[in-house]
Amino acid sequence: MRLTSEQHLDDGVLERRFTLDGVPGVLWTPEPASAPVPVILMGHPGGLDRMHPRLAARARHAVAQGFAAATIELPGAGDRPRSPAADEARADLRRAVEAGEPVPDEVVDRLVLPLVDQAVPEWQATLDALLELPGISGPVGFSGGVISIGVRLAVVEPRIAAAGLFAGSYVPRGIVEQARQVTIPLHVLLQWDDEHNDRQMALDLFDAFGSKEKTLHANMGGHIGVPSYAGEDSSRFFTRHLK
Amino acid sequence: MRLTSEQHLDDGVLERRFTLDGVPGVLWTPEPASAPVPVILMGHPGGLDRMHPRLAARARHAVAQGFAAATIELPGAGDRPRSPAADEARADLRRAVEAGEPVPDEVVDRLVLPLVDQAVPEWQATLDALLELPGISGPVGFSGGVISIGVRLAVVEPRIAAAGLFAGSYVPRGIVEQARQVTIPLHVLLQWDDEHNDRQMALDLFDAFGSKEKTLHANMGGHIGVPSYAGEDSSRFFTRHLK
Repeated sequence: MRLTSEQHLDDGVLERRFTLDGVPGVLWTPEPASAPVPVILMGHPGGLDRMHPRLAARARHAVAQGFAAATIELPGAGDRPRSPAADEARADLRRAVEAGEPVPDEVVDRLVLPLVDQAVPEWQATLDALLELPGISGPVGFSGGVISIGVRLAVVEPRIAAAGLFAGSYVPRGIVEQARQVTIPLHVLLQWDDEHNDRQMALDLFDAFGSKEKTLHANMGGHIGVPSYAGEDSSRFFTRHLK
Repeated sequence: MRLTSEQHLDDGVLERRFTLDGVPGVLWTPEPASAPVPVILMGHPGGLDRMHPRLAARARHAVAQGFAAATIELPGAGDRPRSPAADEARADLRRAVEAGEPVPDEVVDRLVLPLVDQAVPEWQATLDALLELPGISGPVGFSGGVISIGVRLAVVEPRIAAAGLFAGSYVPRGIVEQARQVTIPLHVLLQWDDEHNDRQMALDLFDAFGSKEKTLHANMGGHIGVPSYAGEDSSRFFTRHLK
């Protein structure tokens, strides 16, 4: 992990950019450095620069609650090499949505599965590197989307102790099947009228999770209309499980 | 409203039993009496004595948050005259559930609609009387079940400013239709594996509500397994809207 820049934010938060094996990322920690704190991996739909204001706001909130927060760029997004196959699948998905047709399972598979296959080991390598830093310890949380990445991580990565998932993207049927193997506590956010989401698919996914403790919070509004109190509920969830 | 008994609970709560036109009820207020506080009407499935421990716990929590709380017995429950028609409908419902068959709409209608028709004016009369007491003011909340009573109250009673509804009972299709007229902020609790409930019906009802602000919190477990953090979320909802 190579630190490339650091910025002292005004509310006791140190923001550091890094790269790890060519993947850019951002790390937010309390300042001055404290005893080691649990870290929350923050998922997002891709495009670190575009997403930065929202990610930084979520991270500042997490740091204020006693966590570190970190994120990395998704494969094919931001400054990373694009994937022609993913671009084609995304175009196919858009065509189906615009025509008002159901999105074929194979289109969702082509779009999401290669992304999950590539991203999950990158998140795990990031976690290896983060946990070697002096101010960061387990347990680890995953928060946000892409929800399929969160599901796979929850299954394959035992250091993740709790996940707050954002049901804001299409989910391959294979990932819904894999959700049955998830056993960690889950807090799932669903925007009831999300234009980028299939509500029934999100409810099926929630039903499939094997976790004994799982909570679904559905709110009104579209993809980016999550109300502030929903973020606070989510932060209380992590405090319950990671502190 | 005739006060029939009063008990000073040990945590600054005065519990008073009352009757109003033959309907027994309970009122919980802060002690010593403060400036007037908003009141939360607490719904329940019927049987005040049986439900008293859980109702008193909810009421104490409400009083600690700066509210008064009140409830009345349901028609046909506790010491009130039973309704042979409702008993018959309840037996028909039980037979269908035990046989693993879908519960016919007409059975749900026979069980729930007369209950709503009778209970709602009783809650309104209770509210009239409560708001004449010195320590109680608006705005008013409704919290709990029977959810069909909460829906009808939210439509016909303009003094109710927010409702926290428990999706824990069968809902007639006519009530789902009426839900479209509800516009106040709603916080709906759903027990995902509730044995007394039809999950799809609860989701349809949530979808039908006309309110711009509505939140669904679904948790694992059966009818009486609501986790304590779900109660705290609900209490924050009332604080946001009634204070």
